[in-house]
Amino acid sequence: MTKTATPYPPLHSPRRILMGPGPSDVPQTILAALAQPTVGHLDPFYLQAMDGLQSMLRHVFKTDNELTFAVSGTGSAGMETAVVNLVEPGDSVLICVNGVFGSRMADVAERAGAVVNTITKPWGQIFTTTELKNAIVKFKPKIVGIVMAETSTGASQPISAIADVVHNAGGLLIVDAVTSLGGMNVEVDQWGIDVVFSGTQKCLSCPPGLAPISFSPAAVASIERRATKVSSWYFDVSMIANYWGENRAYHHTAPINMTFALYEALRLLLAEGLEACYARHALNHRALKRGLEILGFTYAADPEHQLPMLNAVNLPAAVDDAQMRLALLEQYKIEIGGGLGELKGKVWRIGIMGHSAKSENVLSLLEALENLFVENRIVCESGVACRAANAVYLNG
Amino acid sequence: MTKTATPYPPLHSPRRILMGPGPSDVPQTILAALAQPTVGHLDPFYLQAMDGLQSMLRHVFKTDNELTFAVSGTGSAGMETAVVNLVEPGDSVLICVNGVFGSRMADVAERAGAVVNTITKPWGQIFTTTELKNAIVKFKPKIVGIVMAETSTGASQPISAIADVVHNAGGLLIVDAVTSLGGMNVEVDQWGIDVVFSGTQKCLSCPPGLAPISFSPAAVASIERRATKVSSWYFDVSMIANYWGENRAYHHTAPINMTFALYEALRLLLAEGLEACYARHALNHRALKRGLEILGFTYAADPEHQLPMLNAVNLPAAVDDAQMRLALLEQYKIEIGGGLGELKGKVWRIGIMGHSAKSENVLSLLEALENLFVENRIVCESGVACRAANAVYLNG
Repeated sequence: MTKTATPYPPLHSPRRILMGPGPSDVPQTILAALAQPTVGHLDPFYLQAMDGLQSMLRHVFKTDNELTFAVSGTGSAGMETAVVNLVEPGDSVLICVNGVFGSRMADVAERAGAVVNTITKPWGQIFTTTELKNAIVKFKPKIVGIVMAETSTGASQPISAIADVVHNAGGLLIVDAVTSLGGMNVEVDQWGIDVVFSGTQKCLSCPPGLAPISFSPAAVASIERRATKVSSWYFDVSMIANYWGENRAYHHTAPINMTFALYEALRLLLAEGLEACYARHALNHRALKRGLEILGFTYAADPEHQLPMLNAVNLPAAVDDAQMRLALLEQYKIEIGGGLGELKGKVWRIGIMGHSAKSENVLSLLEALENLFVENRIVCESGVACRAANAVYLNG
Repeated sequence: MTKTATPYPPLHSPRRILMGPGPSDVPQTILAALAQPTVGHLDPFYLQAMDGLQSMLRHVFKTDNELTFAVSGTGSAGMETAVVNLVEPGDSVLICVNGVFGSRMADVAERAGAVVNTITKPWGQIFTTTELKNAIVKFKPKIVGIVMAETSTGASQPISAIADVVHNAGGLLIVDAVTSLGGMNVEVDQWGIDVVFSGTQKCLSCPPGLAPISFSPAAVASIERRATKVSSWYFDVSMIANYWGENRAYHHTAPINMTFALYEALRLLLAEGLEACYARHALNHRALKRGLEILGFTYAADPEHQLPMLNAVNLPAAVDDAQMRLALLEQYKIEIGGGLGELKGKVWRIGIMGHSAKSENVLSLLEALENLFVENRIVCESGVACRAANAVYLNG
């Protein structure tokens, strides 16, 4: 049946201040890079851009891993690529679950045929090295998966001490760095991570569409020893590596323009400097936190383990979740995120990721919240939270 | 180990005339749509854009299928989504293989646990309904997969008579329309296709990064009857449908800006009109073919079954494949494609897809080839092929 086509209007997307769990604000130069003329996926210019992108990704991941590239999908595609390439049917896998993204990794591993065991912690808490060690002794996993920055809870999982425990038991460590990469230290080689993946739309401030990933030599060796094909054709790194590596063998048509955008995003990040960028996230986190606490918010994550870039805060009883977020969006053009999974309706997730991590954003949000809280008689006085946040900027 | 970041130069991608197997030329308005401000994946503006995109995709696919959307990956991600959602381990699948993309579909199905049987034809030939019927009687497949536009050979597989054969035997039909959609008639409902997928970077003239897809009610019912989880989490349409449908349940962060670009690409296509767009592809194909044949090229596909948008032509003995394509790119800024698989080094693949299907491109390519052929003493006289192509444009 042929339908009659009715005219569709062109899109004119509104300017938002993006302070949810991603996407974050995308600077104009990254949007301009995205809109450069498309070239072929085997064009010498494009191959050179790929090389530059891989080299910059190695800097950002702090790794020498040869197999470092961007998966042609969003962050969850990075997770699937990490898991399905390491897992063979029947493999024992241990996943640490303290939020939505740990659960997701367990699901991905199960679908790939793994025998999945999980250890759990209440949402907002993190795992200790001892807890991990005990679980590893018990389950003897070939692969351990853990989320560094749990975007559903705002919890920051320490990673540096984990790899030794995993490696001593003969396993490989997969780390989800979707939300952390670029906004806080991620030391892939130093910490001994075997597979790390991220997304473009968090602290890299690029539109969503690619998933940076890196495999250690041990992970590559494990893939080379596989007896079975990877369950996914699209995410099979043995073939993808042939395109990103010297052979340049066609696998699938790469998302050309997204590669241009990610290249520019990484360029901006390295021009600022990784340590300076982490410090900027930390400072804006302190200012935001001071203001939010004055407004009556408490954090969902343990005080010692809060992510700088993703602030998951418990809603004061008087706040109407959906109505208040809509007012922020419509009246102030500010997007923040609602809760996910068991925290749905209970928390807000406020992102200060990448180029969203700046005082204008933090102060705009606090001012908007103060206005709305006064209008809704949740607090009596406006300006206090902003002044407190400002003091953090002034005094460090 | 922390590397010292060296400065990376900004990218300035060159303007090419894209006449390979995709990506095709991307009009400036589509690039501008791509670079619009990023918004959140649950922003009311974005949800409305998704609705418009789905509605336009239904027009272009000529279907009423509710489950019609864009997969967050390139064309091969569309193939994987089609296959893994229908296949359960042990299912009998029949794949028709007469080029690279049929082989790929068989590989994808095998990885999903299917018992895969194939029928084959020499590259460049197509399958008859009788051949299919015989294979279906023999293998009793639950799923039959076939490529409508085999991009490796330029062969155009008739689809309209196939679905009845598949359905009468209780099966479901998957059709690869990556290269055909938008450039020739694809009648999803009329022809009885159960799952059809495409890519953005062919006749839709959008950058690569999304894969339009559509599932018939019978395909959806089959998915709802599954006893096992889909092997891929990222491509599991039961969850993806909850985001594209009314629930708007978060699955993964959509490639926001690519959605804007695809929306604009579909808008331009429907504004031109589907039938007018098919006719434009057909006219440019006739002109190109006349010119190429004068230059000594013959087509790799059967004369009655040649795709308009993908012209795979056998190389005359005197032509040096790599050297000549490099000269086209460097001296004339024209990209054409080399051969793939068993046709590597033997054919060129010349695309006139989407906005690349225009007389300027066809005549520029023929003129460039004539110049290079005279320089390389392959022909003595230039201008003949261009004049012949021009005559097609003048006389229809």
